[in-house]
Amino acid sequence: MPVFAFRGGASGAWSIRKATALRGPGLPACSALDITPDEGTAPPGAAAWHLRGQISNLRYATRQEVTQLRAVQPELARPEARYAALIPLRKTTQWWELAQDERRTIFEEMSGHTRIGMDYLPAIARKLYHCRDLGEGFDFLTWFEFAPEHEPAFESLLASLRGSAEWEFVDREIDIRLVRAS
Amino acid sequence: MPVFAFRGGASGAWSIRKATALRGPGLPACSALDITPDEGTAPPGAAAWHLRGQISNLRYATRQEVTQLRAVQPELARPEARYAALIPLRKTTQWWELAQDERRTIFEEMSGHTRIGMDYLPAIARKLYHCRDLGEGFDFLTWFEFAPEHEPAFESLLASLRGSAEWEFVDREIDIRLVRAS
Repeated sequence: MPVFAFRGGASGAWSIRKATALRGPGLPACSALDITPDEGTAPPGAAAWHLRGQISNLRYATRQEVTQLRAVQPELARPEARYAALIPLRKTTQWWELAQDERRTIFEEMSGHTRIGMDYLPAIARKLYHCRDLGEGFDFLTWFEFAPEHEPAFESLLASLRGSAEWEFVDREIDIRLVRAS
Repeated sequence: MPVFAFRGGASGAWSIRKATALRGPGLPACSALDITPDEGTAPPGAAAWHLRGQISNLRYATRQEVTQLRAVQPELARPEARYAALIPLRKTTQWWELAQDERRTIFEEMSGHTRIGMDYLPAIARKLYHCRDLGEGFDFLTWFEFAPEHEPAFESLLASLRGSAEWEFVDREIDIRLVRAS
């Protein structure tokens, strides 16, 4: 599975507008972010922090949900989507010890994770990177891209998710907002 | 998540009785296997091959299935379980592109993966190591331990799984049979 490196440092394709540690410890402060395919050889010198995440298979979505999502979800790198958010997340041990049907019920039937995301498509593009199995200190790196005028809608999306039953199982969350540097 | 290293070589806690490549290429021939926590520092010198796998969360089992399994499944390293099998498996891209409900339906409702395994408990102890996200060339390292007199039952278990709809999505499988060296 393709692995991507998220490197926070002094320069990069994205400038960091602000970073907020919502649960658990934050990351060292820095001004920019680069995302590149992980070659395993990046010089660690200039980075304030370095996280890796990978594209993987879907864990909860049904075929019907996948079909609905694919019909409306936009690609990344739309010219108008000059704003982005990187939200690294970790879930509790209790979450991971639940059975698949219990996690699915909390994720969708109780929390409407996919359903809430659908309400903000195609304005808010989303991409999920997995890192629980990479030993990164987070389980997921969630990535969002949107036009600046859609940031209020993005706040609303986050408020819905953060108020959900699923979020009771989130024990680390950092909200990093960015703008394209170029 | 804890990562374990499976090292095939000239010596180890398990002696290899036979190794059969059922689908896709095999592994270099060797006579023994060691399983150790992966320190990322193992000297590669003496190993014929080296695979890593990690304990991860359940992907398909419901709470009811987990409860049933836990009530009867034995621990590893029972004194009488002198035989073992290591079966590295890879599934097709088509499998991984299925939605969660489609994979669950094939895995359990159509193929009875958990149900079949239950029929052979407590004789056949099982442990699943994940490696799809570690880039190992396999998706899973499946491990079984049983007393020598239960090897015919183990063959029957394998025949049931290999004849199932789920196995139409297996594109690499190696069956390595072992006996405790000590």
